[in-house]
Amino acid sequence: MNTFAGIYPPVVTPFTAGGEIDFGSLDRVVDHLIDGGMHGLFVLGSTGEVAYLTDDQRVAVISAIARRTDGRVPLLVGCMEQTAPRVIQQAHRAIAAGAAGIVVTAPFYALNCVSEIADHFRMVSAAVDVPVFAYDVPVRLGGVKLVSEMLVTLGTEGVIAGVKDSSGNDVEFRRLVALNRAVGSPLQLFTGHEMINEAMMLIGADGMVPGFANVDPGRYRALYDACTDGKWEHAVAIQEEINAEFQIVFKPRGRGGDGTGVGAFKIAMSLLGVIDSPTQPRPLADFTDEDISAVREVLVSTGLLS
Amino acid sequence: MNTFAGIYPPVVTPFTAGGEIDFGSLDRVVDHLIDGGMHGLFVLGSTGEVAYLTDDQRVAVISAIARRTDGRVPLLVGCMEQTAPRVIQQAHRAIAAGAAGIVVTAPFYALNCVSEIADHFRMVSAAVDVPVFAYDVPVRLGGVKLVSEMLVTLGTEGVIAGVKDSSGNDVEFRRLVALNRAVGSPLQLFTGHEMINEAMMLIGADGMVPGFANVDPGRYRALYDACTDGKWEHAVAIQEEINAEFQIVFKPRGRGGDGTGVGAFKIAMSLLGVIDSPTQPRPLADFTDEDISAVREVLVSTGLLS
Amino acid sequence: MNTFAGIYPPVVTPFTAGGEIDFGSLDRVVDHLIDGGMHGLFVLGSTGEVAYLTDDQRVAVISAIARRTDGRVPLLVGCMEQTAPRVIQQAHRAIAAGAAGIVVTAPFYALNCVSEIADHFRMVSAAVDVPVFAYDVPVRLGGVKLVSEMLVTLGTEGVIAGVKDSSGNDVEFRRLVALNRAVGSPLQLFTGHEMINEAMMLIGADGMVPGFANVDPGRYRALYDACTDGKWEHAVAIQEEINAEFQIVFKPRGRGGDGTGVGAFKIAMSLLGVIDSPTQPRPLADFTDEDISAVREVLVSTGLLS
Amino acid sequence: MNTFAGIYPPVVTPFTAGGEIDFGSLDRVVDHLIDGGMHGLFVLGSTGEVAYLTDDQRVAVISAIARRTDGRVPLLVGCMEQTAPRVIQQAHRAIAAGAAGIVVTAPFYALNCVSEIADHFRMVSAAVDVPVFAYDVPVRLGGVKLVSEMLVTLGTEGVIAGVKDSSGNDVEFRRLVALNRAVGSPLQLFTGHEMINEAMMLIGADGMVPGFANVDPGRYRALYDACTDGKWEHAVAIQEEINAEFQIVFKPRGRGGDGTGVGAFKIAMSLLGVIDSPTQPRPLADFTDEDISAVREVLVSTGLLS
Repeated sequence: MNTFAGIYPPVVTPFTAGGEIDFGSLDRVVDHLIDGGMHGLFVLGSTGEVAYLTDDQRVAVISAIARRTDGRVPLLVGCMEQTAPRVIQQAHRAIAAGAAGIVVTAPFYALNCVSEIADHFRMVSAAVDVPVFAYDVPVRLGGVKLVSEMLVTLGTEGVIAGVKDSSGNDVEFRRLVALNRAVGSPLQLFTGHEMINEAMMLIGADGMVPGFANVDPGRYRALYDACTDGKWEHAVAIQEEINAEFQIVFKPRGRGGDGTGVGAFKIAMSLLGVIDSPTQPRPLADFTDEDISAVREVLVSTGLLS
Repeated sequence: MNTFAGIYPPVVTPFTAGGEIDFGSLDRVVDHLIDGGMHGLFVLGSTGEVAYLTDDQRVAVISAIARRTDGRVPLLVGCMEQTAPRVIQQAHRAIAAGAAGIVVTAPFYALNCVSEIADHFRMVSAAVDVPVFAYDVPVRLGGVKLVSEMLVTLGTEGVIAGVKDSSGNDVEFRRLVALNRAVGSPLQLFTGHEMINEAMMLIGADGMVPGFANVDPGRYRALYDACTDGKWEHAVAIQEEINAEFQIVFKPRGRGGDGTGVGAFKIAMSLLGVIDSPTQPRPLADFTDEDISAVREVLVSTGLLS
Repeated sequence: MNTFAGIYPPVVTPFTAGGEIDFGSLDRVVDHLIDGGMHGLFVLGSTGEVAYLTDDQRVAVISAIARRTDGRVPLLVGCMEQTAPRVIQQAHRAIAAGAAGIVVTAPFYALNCVSEIADHFRMVSAAVDVPVFAYDVPVRLGGVKLVSEMLVTLGTEGVIAGVKDSSGNDVEFRRLVALNRAVGSPLQLFTGHEMINEAMMLIGADGMVPGFANVDPGRYRALYDACTDGKWEHAVAIQEEINAEFQIVFKPRGRGGDGTGVGAFKIAMSLLGVIDSPTQPRPLADFTDEDISAVREVLVSTGLLS
Repeated sequence: MNTFAGIYPPVVTPFTAGGEIDFGSLDRVVDHLIDGGMHGLFVLGSTGEVAYLTDDQRVAVISAIARRTDGRVPLLVGCMEQTAPRVIQQAHRAIAAGAAGIVVTAPFYALNCVSEIADHFRMVSAAVDVPVFAYDVPVRLGGVKLVSEMLVTLGTEGVIAGVKDSSGNDVEFRRLVALNRAVGSPLQLFTGHEMINEAMMLIGADGMVPGFANVDPGRYRALYDACTDGKWEHAVAIQEEINAEFQIVFKPRGRGGDGTGVGAFKIAMSLLGVIDSPTQPRPLADFTDEDISAVREVLVSTGLLS
């Protein structure tokens, strides 16, 4: 289980200007991340624009990343589907393509109560033979928050192996840390934060899943190491450097949530030469020159780009 | 286009006690609805528990309904998927299986702005050759409400042919009615309400999509006819009878949204002999005897069951 | 109790350009409303900008309206305060100044459960000797919605005499109508809608509290009379005329909720000569010429202003 | 300005079993807090049940606390009112009664945009001659969050001297820390958290306003000192002790937000002998024996009570 600690960045899915998945760039992203010191990869997360990919494209992305990774680090793969039967189908394909663990949200489009959500995870876990991580992401699930007590119960039962917390509810995350410890720490707890990761490490996170590590993996690794070394004020200094860079996410204009954050990452990655084009899947529009200039300016002023 | 006016109930998907789709019961549901005077059927809506079905099950349900309907009324089919590429795949299968039109929501799990949502509908519409209906259902989409001005623009462009409004925002529905008329009524406007349908007809709805018509289609037809005849106070009297029956939805206990409303419909339909079992797809639990008794009591007290 | 049926518009509070309450204009507003056929007045509602007035100003407004009304119609007075002890103080002052009934919300700033909210109303009612109306206005109360069953219980107990429903939840309003009738109609039920009032009358409202009646009381009276005469399609025609005029509320720019709706009413009233200045209390900014022109254009195009 | 750094607990307002303010117990609370090492007191906050007090009671509470404090520490006083004119009246009374600074929220019941909220603070600040602290408490203000850029602008203008952040949005708090530093740190930044205070100190908080310090001020002081000494892992250990005690807030049953958190504090304080009775103002009900036993059990198991 400890193989899943550390930093597992959600891997972006590059597209060509024409709108096809750009597997050449994807190979470079994988190398960029592993060379940057990442402990594993989270494939087909929100940052990977999983929602915009067909089932076949999803499999192709997993396979490509697995091939390029070639066992250097483990892969956690997102199986973002409406309900358990559909998640299970995705999971079987993902495992066949190289997933060492899968990441599963509460049901969506569906409307369920807590006991039904718990059974959803039990259904998925019973159908697969790899560790299952629960992904808590209320912003994409109509505000549905995974209940800490439920998560720890599922951990104790062996249903789930960990949690990726993107709830933004840090008090509840700390309760989860405490509840998990009280029963012997069956869960690995990853924070989905980008900007307060050293604080989450301080209060008990086992790892992190920062989308912005696609842009600057090295600094996140240095941050992580400072935390595990107990050098908290050094960690703060690194986090503040990251945060200055991270302001790129406020630069793209006239776009929704997916077009702003991930879009800014893609602009930066293309400016840094990691990927060929910042293109996002339709209906997300092409970036304007102003968007790109504004991101470049942040990268230059923070020294990430010369 | 006028073929799509009137009542299009969202068809429930019956399951056997063992959890398989019960196609025998489904045939009876289809007859029950058409014999009850419904003008068309809405297949694979939320009431049809579309979220809990695999792609193959979805096709099987459409095909079965199309076969049993045998052209008696048109079928609108829900293609509830995260983004346009996935909706389009569903749509092609649905049309091949008999859909006369498709019903499409805003993207979900994805986070998009209004212009991106408009382009989402444009992508879908360009890829299919049947009418597209926009389905406005914020309660399942994290609060995302389709903007009236956008809908009318899409109607004017010929992108969408109508709207199913399950927003519960009746003021905005009336704005939509007025905006639609001002440009020549390109859109057919269906209300997704169950309990205030005569009021929505009074202010300009072209039709309705009441889930509870699965239980009592005849009364909804009488309500609709009273409205089109301008007999508004008679319509109110019928709606009040329906509403007394509709209180079954407050009876099932300890369940989420899907387990309560649709669950109560299924209990009632099984008590009325339309379907064999009220079973809902897992993780929705079996009903307790108390749930069933409480629903029966409402049906008896309102005279629907003797 | 029946004296409280009909139309009770929430009276706007005019200000001079210098920011003082303009009592001369207020007198004209009162006459404009009573001459327009209003059955009563709702003083110090949200539309009356009650939140922006000190206690002394509140009393001065009630007294001025009472003096000008001179018994022609009854006054309901809003006592919008955080908790019961503070509401009661406001109520005593309001009654001394001429209130025939008071209007009370759930507590705000405070965080209470349903039974505590019920006791809040019981505390207020026990301390005053005029009818108490519950005001359901979730948009100003952090989403707190008064529960229908609680309201009917309070009606049966004689704690409240009626409800002003500004929840926008028309399904729940209809449930409230049905629950109230089932126990002998202790409550008078007023809709707070502006744009779908004939629909609310059709399904059982006893009256209405339209802010826009400050601009065009006569048309609302005609609408109300058409409803009570059972001329529903005529009522729809009148409501549609009102709704065309009501689009003024989308015209003011760069303002919050209070600055947009009430602001537009005040611009229209000043253009119609009912009040001297559209000024709103600080921190609401003065209107731009563009705001005023845009409102004038709607008034002219709809024939309200020549 | 630096006098306002450190821990400023929101002082509870004790009531007798008969529902009167218990000034004898209030004196003991003041001593308990100052003896516990608190750097100042925050009077009439949400924890002080300010919403339930009349204007006269508010003044009496401030005066009593000022008298007992006798200059040992400075007092910040909450002026929680709907709009600026009402806040200003409260502020003048508070200052006369001994406030060294005032604490002001965005308007409530009112609906304002960001520029109007900024002007609200400007109006208040211009009318008083003590430092103004902005209180960011969306949970009581219908979700209204104070915008970081606005706060820093107001700091630069000298309008506000600091912020109490009870938003629970820690990412935005960190942005506020960074924006404030970039302009020379005009603002003192207090976290309103209870359970992750060392993490907030690590990322840049200047102080804290923990309601639970009413129960255990000494441990919060030790936590604060560990943070200022850079002993982060020791701070974590103390925070975890506090958090174990803090679980009392999950014990009272059948109450709203005010009856649960503050109520649990009051039960604990009465068990510890700091106050005579845990009574909360009506309509908050008396506690059951089960509530009190459940809180006692936590206190005993954590060693706070023997």
